[in-house]
Amino acid sequence: MVVNGVAEGDPEGEERSIRVRAEQLSPRIGELAHNLDLIERAIVAAVADGVQLLVLPELSTSGYYLRDKAEALSVALSADDPVLDRWASLLPADAVVVVGFCENAAGVLYNSAVVVDAGGVIAVYRKTHLWDAEQNLFVPGPDRPPVVETGLGRLGVLICYDLEFPEMPRSLALRGADILVVPTNWPLVPRPDGERPPEVVQAMAASRSSAIPIVCCDRSGSERGNVWTQGTSIIADGWPVGSTDAQGRVDATIAIPRSRTRIGPLNDVLSDRRPDLYF
Amino acid sequence: MVVNGVAEGDPEGEERSIRVRAEQLSPRIGELAHNLDLIERAIVAAVADGVQLLVLPELSTSGYYLRDKAEALSVALSADDPVLDRWASLLPADAVVVVGFCENAAGVLYNSAVVVDAGGVIAVYRKTHLWDAEQNLFVPGPDRPPVVETGLGRLGVLICYDLEFPEMPRSLALRGADILVVPTNWPLVPRPDGERPPEVVQAMAASRSSAIPIVCCDRSGSERGNVWTQGTSIIADGWPVGSTDAQGRVDATIAIPRSRTRIGPLNDVLSDRRPDLYF
Repeated sequence: MVVNGVAEGDPEGEERSIRVRAEQLSPRIGELAHNLDLIERAIVAAVADGVQLLVLPELSTSGYYLRDKAEALSVALSADDPVLDRWASLLPADAVVVVGFCENAAGVLYNSAVVVDAGGVIAVYRKTHLWDAEQNLFVPGPDRPPVVETGLGRLGVLICYDLEFPEMPRSLALRGADILVVPTNWPLVPRPDGERPPEVVQAMAASRSSAIPIVCCDRSGSERGNVWTQGTSIIADGWPVGSTDAQGRVDATIAIPRSRTRIGPLNDVLSDRRPDLYF
Repeated sequence: MVVNGVAEGDPEGEERSIRVRAEQLSPRIGELAHNLDLIERAIVAAVADGVQLLVLPELSTSGYYLRDKAEALSVALSADDPVLDRWASLLPADAVVVVGFCENAAGVLYNSAVVVDAGGVIAVYRKTHLWDAEQNLFVPGPDRPPVVETGLGRLGVLICYDLEFPEMPRSLALRGADILVVPTNWPLVPRPDGERPPEVVQAMAASRSSAIPIVCCDRSGSERGNVWTQGTSIIADGWPVGSTDAQGRVDATIAIPRSRTRIGPLNDVLSDRRPDLYF
């Protein structure tokens, strides 16, 4: 059913709960083999713990503060690298993993995220809004982010700075995503005492505005003198759920919302939109 | 200068600071004369205190939980009612007042906000996203919200539920607003202990996303058994500034940002947009 140009969730669809984890790894800059081992161990542990959706950070394979294109190329993977199939081989039938990686597409570098299930790679998204010096390494992705059909539901994928453009989570919700997954590398920025990271505030607002859960996976520690925010958050109904454990993991059980954008007898956060008035 | 379709702030423009107040009045439902007296006293006090921009709540003249159209019509004002000029007459040359009012336009009711300066009425905005039972009383405004040129800067005007559509504050920022003013009546909704009202979280995110200050004026107390959130907030750089005093006032000095959407050597929150990818 389409109301006001918006595809409604399937009103007959059964609500489901999924077990979600975001784990803020500490990859070492430029150490591909070490980082691939970290990622594999995170996947194995998640599967052992019954996690169905695992989200890992942006550029998990390479680290973030790469000095130049030569260093980035030295740790970049193509989207058909066998290691991505290796990750798939570790998954049971109902599980999905999202990993940020440094992509080499015939010599062109992208800041990408791959969505993998037991059958293999089901989507690769190339970050479209590049932050700061990323612009010296990567080409901005030419395509809008995917809404990926998985056994868990429809995943919308964004990477870090993408989420700070309110049009992006909104677009994915309008296109039918059930949940957003956001690998990030958030550099620590000043904030008032007692406040959450501002990027988390933006994720909370995006979650409430479009009645969609959002999983943000940040980084641990620091890299080349730059400290990470460690703002890993799983957000449902606009509020963070769960908290980060000593290993940098946030676990939560999330209801896939389907048809849950109605917020009262007369209101729906998507079909109440007035697109004729915007921009 | 226009970059990526976005008008940049005037780089030669002098940054200015303005004294802002939001005062969460307690109008009485259906008691027009009482409420006009409240409004007038709030304006006089603000002028005496040197406030340059005063924002009052949604439907300040009438109250919110009007039973039916007949009751709403009994307290509605036309946009050329002499009382609006009366408010103008109370203002010095550099001051602006924004008041939510129940508008009667030849028998059609709108949930409106008026922007007044010493010269008289300079804009009327008719709320475009109607919440819940408002839909039984009011017609949604047909026009997008105004960006009003004033002596203080360019004011973008929204009313309450409008702000929960991230497209709305974004649109006003893109159209060159320096500050957003948002008369609201926020009914108290459940929230986790220790959290701010979710509507304030959305305002904080909107402020950061578009690097624009936002003034939200809520209500005090309760009305016909419905409790108000009392979430009045003045937000700059994504964070609330000032706090509500015993009289329900929040005062703050706000730098009108002009050319302040640049957030690093290579990034600008407006011109980094990728409109080709949205929606």
